[in-house]
Amino acid sequence: MSADGPCRGLSLNTATVRQQWTLKEMIPACRHFGFTGISPWRDQIAATGLGETAQMIEGEGLAVTGVCRGGMFPWADAAGRAAMLDDNRRAIEEARTLGAECLVLVVGGLPPGSKDIEGARAMVAEAVDVLLPEARAAGVPLAIEPLHPMYAADRACINTLGQALDLCDLLGDGLGVALDVYHVWWDPMLSAEIERAGQRLLAFHVCDWLVPTRDLLLDRGMMGDGVIDIPAIRRQVQAAGFAGHAEVEIFSAETWWTRPPEEVLATCRERYLTAV
Amino acid sequence: MSADGPCRGLSLNTATVRQQWTLKEMIPACRHFGFTGISPWRDQIAATGLGETAQMIEGEGLAVTGVCRGGMFPWADAAGRAAMLDDNRRAIEEARTLGAECLVLVVGGLPPGSKDIEGARAMVAEAVDVLLPEARAAGVPLAIEPLHPMYAADRACINTLGQALDLCDLLGDGLGVALDVYHVWWDPMLSAEIERAGQRLLAFHVCDWLVPTRDLLLDRGMMGDGVIDIPAIRRQVQAAGFAGHAEVEIFSAETWWTRPPEEVLATCRERYLTAV
Repeated sequence: MSADGPCRGLSLNTATVRQQWTLKEMIPACRHFGFTGISPWRDQIAATGLGETAQMIEGEGLAVTGVCRGGMFPWADAAGRAAMLDDNRRAIEEARTLGAECLVLVVGGLPPGSKDIEGARAMVAEAVDVLLPEARAAGVPLAIEPLHPMYAADRACINTLGQALDLCDLLGDGLGVALDVYHVWWDPMLSAEIERAGQRLLAFHVCDWLVPTRDLLLDRGMMGDGVIDIPAIRRQVQAAGFAGHAEVEIFSAETWWTRPPEEVLATCRERYLTAV
Repeated sequence: MSADGPCRGLSLNTATVRQQWTLKEMIPACRHFGFTGISPWRDQIAATGLGETAQMIEGEGLAVTGVCRGGMFPWADAAGRAAMLDDNRRAIEEARTLGAECLVLVVGGLPPGSKDIEGARAMVAEAVDVLLPEARAAGVPLAIEPLHPMYAADRACINTLGQALDLCDLLGDGLGVALDVYHVWWDPMLSAEIERAGQRLLAFHVCDWLVPTRDLLLDRGMMGDGVIDIPAIRRQVQAAGFAGHAEVEIFSAETWWTRPPEEVLATCRERYLTAV
């Protein structure tokens, strides 16, 4: 048992210390700092090996609150479409092997040269429709993550919780959402859509929105350092029926990625208790 | 008559060449490059003088498609609230003097230290409710500009066209919206909300969303250089009844603010004809 003891409901998204540690280092550290869940990225899983990753995570008794990530659906041509489907099938298999609670889908933005965002959204629906029966058969829930509108062009053309839930309504069982406070905190419809989401909430990600934000991608804040009322959103998510982990996912090139990883994990734990 | 001839429907938001020129230089240049409208910023009006600005614009026969800007409503304390109202009253008076088609409202974000975005939104509604009768009496339409969600914390907590129209519904005549493609292009509800807006569309701003976008504030693109289907949005706006100018507003610290202003204006004109 670690000096800190387990901190129920706290999960580490492995992007948070990706510049400092490999998965092999992160997995025991999660246990040491009291995290009870982990959500690994696929490049990190590949670097450690899928079998060894699964074994280590099981050995530490951690829940796998997600695998990051499938998606990037919109295609430029038939070869691109086939490669995208293959990659997503591998992602489903990896999530199955790890016993993940969901495979997180970052759905992708516009294909190269396109200005047709509604066309990209139609491609997302088509690809998820193809993959969903396979994910169901593998027992892997798919979690669409609506991304902040500033990523609509190049990362995800699903940009609100309402839009993600419309897709769930369209495509049926086995599909839900991963809700990250960073992406949705501004949305005037957020409370109503969280209530609507109910059991389709498959993952809950936390970090904070800094003022000023210096970079569109790599300047996320530690919980409590920004302007998001995280406890209010968490209460809504719990009231809607979500009983899973809060997963800390911080991309922070100039701050948290430069700190000793032990300090980062200790801070995540402390802030989970005071600011989530 | 200039070498280029007038280009009906084209307006210059003066932020576009603010690093190169004062208003005194921009106003005759607008006429020279065929712009038929102008939308000046208040700091530039103050630098030139309100009376002289009005006289010069009238002398060149330009429409004033807006004054930028009123707003920044949420307050920290009673003194802040009073100063905010005073400043907005001056803005209304300046817009009246210039015969502007509207006063653009950038409504403001969270007060210092606040995480209460719904509270900030309530302050916006309260302030507009106070100011609207005065704007009506002055004959100055107020145009709420929904800003991209990436500005929710520090610039504007009204982030979708739907939200702006809800406020119009609540507060009544004399209030409309300024629609900037940069802020709203990603919105899955955009088409429906433009149709809903109808005669409440008071201004239409154009620029483009670049991929990648290197800065949250100062990396807007020239029309045609990004991913926004501007002609499609313009057709919708016109179908909804808007017959006013397309106003070019580009904040571009590393590109367009470094170019000779004549080149910038000539490019705006060319792109207006080919990419708007």
